[in-house]
Amino acid sequence: MSRPMPTIVRATVTPILISDPPLLNVLGVHQPYTPRSIVEIETDTGVVGIGETYGDSDYLAVARALAKTVVGRPLTSLNGLSDLAYESAGLTVEAGKEFDPAGLRGSRTNEKLIRSVVSAFEVASLDALGVTLGLPVHALLGGKVRDRVDYSGYLFYRWAEHPVDDAPTDTWGAALDPEGIVRQAQRFADDYGFTSFKLKGGVYEPEQEVAAIRALAEAFPGYPLRLDPNGGWSVDAGVRVAEELGGLLEYLEDPTTGIDGMAEVRARTGVMLATNMCVTTFGEIPEAFAKDAVQVVLSDHHYWGGLQATRELAALCRTHGVALSMHSNTHLGVSLAAMTHVASVIPDLEYACDSHRPWQTEDVITEPHTFKGGAIEVSDAPGLGVTLDRDAMAALHERWVRLGVRDRDDVAAMRKADPTWVQPPLPRWK
Amino acid sequence: MSRPMPTIVRATVTPILISDPPLLNVLGVHQPYTPRSIVEIETDTGVVGIGETYGDSDYLAVARALAKTVVGRPLTSLNGLSDLAYESAGLTVEAGKEFDPAGLRGSRTNEKLIRSVVSAFEVASLDALGVTLGLPVHALLGGKVRDRVDYSGYLFYRWAEHPVDDAPTDTWGAALDPEGIVRQAQRFADDYGFTSFKLKGGVYEPEQEVAAIRALAEAFPGYPLRLDPNGGWSVDAGVRVAEELGGLLEYLEDPTTGIDGMAEVRARTGVMLATNMCVTTFGEIPEAFAKDAVQVVLSDHHYWGGLQATRELAALCRTHGVALSMHSNTHLGVSLAAMTHVASVIPDLEYACDSHRPWQTEDVITEPHTFKGGAIEVSDAPGLGVTLDRDAMAALHERWVRLGVRDRDDVAAMRKADPTWVQPPLPRWK
Repeated sequence: MSRPMPTIVRATVTPILISDPPLLNVLGVHQPYTPRSIVEIETDTGVVGIGETYGDSDYLAVARALAKTVVGRPLTSLNGLSDLAYESAGLTVEAGKEFDPAGLRGSRTNEKLIRSVVSAFEVASLDALGVTLGLPVHALLGGKVRDRVDYSGYLFYRWAEHPVDDAPTDTWGAALDPEGIVRQAQRFADDYGFTSFKLKGGVYEPEQEVAAIRALAEAFPGYPLRLDPNGGWSVDAGVRVAEELGGLLEYLEDPTTGIDGMAEVRARTGVMLATNMCVTTFGEIPEAFAKDAVQVVLSDHHYWGGLQATRELAALCRTHGVALSMHSNTHLGVSLAAMTHVASVIPDLEYACDSHRPWQTEDVITEPHTFKGGAIEVSDAPGLGVTLDRDAMAALHERWVRLGVRDRDDVAAMRKADPTWVQPPLPRWK
Repeated sequence: MSRPMPTIVRATVTPILISDPPLLNVLGVHQPYTPRSIVEIETDTGVVGIGETYGDSDYLAVARALAKTVVGRPLTSLNGLSDLAYESAGLTVEAGKEFDPAGLRGSRTNEKLIRSVVSAFEVASLDALGVTLGLPVHALLGGKVRDRVDYSGYLFYRWAEHPVDDAPTDTWGAALDPEGIVRQAQRFADDYGFTSFKLKGGVYEPEQEVAAIRALAEAFPGYPLRLDPNGGWSVDAGVRVAEELGGLLEYLEDPTTGIDGMAEVRARTGVMLATNMCVTTFGEIPEAFAKDAVQVVLSDHHYWGGLQATRELAALCRTHGVALSMHSNTHLGVSLAAMTHVASVIPDLEYACDSHRPWQTEDVITEPHTFKGGAIEVSDAPGLGVTLDRDAMAALHERWVRLGVRDRDDVAAMRKADPTWVQPPLPRWK
């Protein structure tokens, strides 16, 4: 019953630009287009697996270097990918320039960069392995413990349109006050059935965002609610909001920056704090947990190095009595499939996951996911259970070539509307 | 390319008694025979996978209950095994009697008991899955990062023979002083090529065991050496030994009992301390790591709940800057195969692993492993790469039925030689 282990004969990295609405955050606004990378891993038996990760220049360079060196390796050799990525990129854990993670992605270490790239290669390999073996990715991770993964409706303050020509448009309209946020939530509930909401904050005076949460609580009684200003508040502002909203929030996400600031908000209020900013790598865990700075880690399989690494993060959190939820950045269906598989295998992932996916109007898979009852069904098809749409990918790659946008830059995007805009020093709100 | 996921149609637990030499430790001496359990998992496609764990009564009862409930489940459903084991055994994490882990196995919690049993079901499932898919177990764990796993020669003070009739015999002779230990090490080096040694201590006054380590250091210059009195010393004795031997030891293992005692030995000496007693479950990690009580965790896939759980332990240790090595209790080749697979996939498992295996003259696999250069080659054959010897297993099961030994009891075994012997209160040596 022995078979030769499948070998990788080709690995490609395709940078693409995907459209993004004018979603506001503490730094500025999302650009009309944001880069992502699609990784394909092909085996000697002709199977192709796919993965997805960030596409900004620093990530792309590491991914391209890694793609060259995985050829000839067994498809199952995932544990060595991280070392290989460091080597092929000419980086070490300790040294190297501080890379620009862009868009509020936390720690700027080489480890973060390497792991973010490795994650896509691991996912693509697991997809190919699953297809080869006829097993879903979740089965390669010890099997799903739930059939559906709940997601949270991800609400944003936003403009109706980008303030530039030739930008993508949508039908959502503006949301610039509590009423606009409630309207947006209502459409999320109607269209996708979300039964919990997260509001991206840090955009307005905390008092307005508090008012938006109150309005949501009134419009959707009993729904779990979260507020995330991306570290945009001072400790005092975080304490103020925590005290005002404590009882209404499932958790408060990154009210302020840094482990010490988070720990102080926690100590002064007792409110449950989540993070995808002050703990985004394993190296940040010991101090943050020791200081009780975070009570929920928002895992992100890109940041943490893949699906196996996410399970390791889950074990760390479980051991230290810290809860786990899931973070999301702008992404397509390949990453959503990966997120859903890994979320399905972690028994104590009890919070609805975040996903930007509803904001993306494009995809590179033939049958984009649809949220039903706020959830995604866990696929039992071989691999990730998604099929690459090569025409769609080619079109998005052509856009990447044509438009020349190479990095996400929310500050530059805001400057199109306000020429005086500079990156707001944090805390933006005192 | 889809295939139905293999389903479990049969799970059996076979208790066996395996012969064990009169090895001495802080509690007493190994019995002539010790119980183990062999777990078989059979799929609807006729594949049988095997696992091995402790066979004492408490473990056996849990294993038998779990065996009944896994039938009908997908072979790949490993993440739910622990919950199923609690349920089928009628246990909860919090409540239930303190079970007797017997023979210096640390924490006596239900979690430890459940995990020790689940480990064998996970290993048997991975073996069956690997055979089904034509992939070695290490490939199911992300792939080996080394081709050979180094083991350490596990030295014991011992008698030449058990003090009872009809006991198994061997040709090793007695080792009751430093010269005997060096002689034993020499045979280990000659026969198996071990290039590091661990001495099981706690048997004599610490000064004699210090002398044995000095004699080993002289006879085997440059070999890494370890000493493990199983918590048999007072803090002061631990400090004394650490100060005397510090420079000669790779690490000192469980010099004293308890997290606070270990932390004190560490604080007073700076010597690297390992444990397989004060940290044997995830719940013990936070306090032990926070207090710097251990610098090396001796993983044991039985204790920790299987191969995936061992990787999670590795991630915890890595994150906290604690090293990982591997513990062993009396076991056969099924467990040695599992230990070797998991050791092969953890990049930072840099210490030679422990294994009692050379002391066992029997096995339940058709081709028992042989140590070459102190190492075991990592098998690339499907599954664990070992084949159950049903005749051998039947004979050892028949012995279990016939002799009626149901639990390991080193104290009772010592009482055969010394009727006045009672379990020594720890610390045995001040």
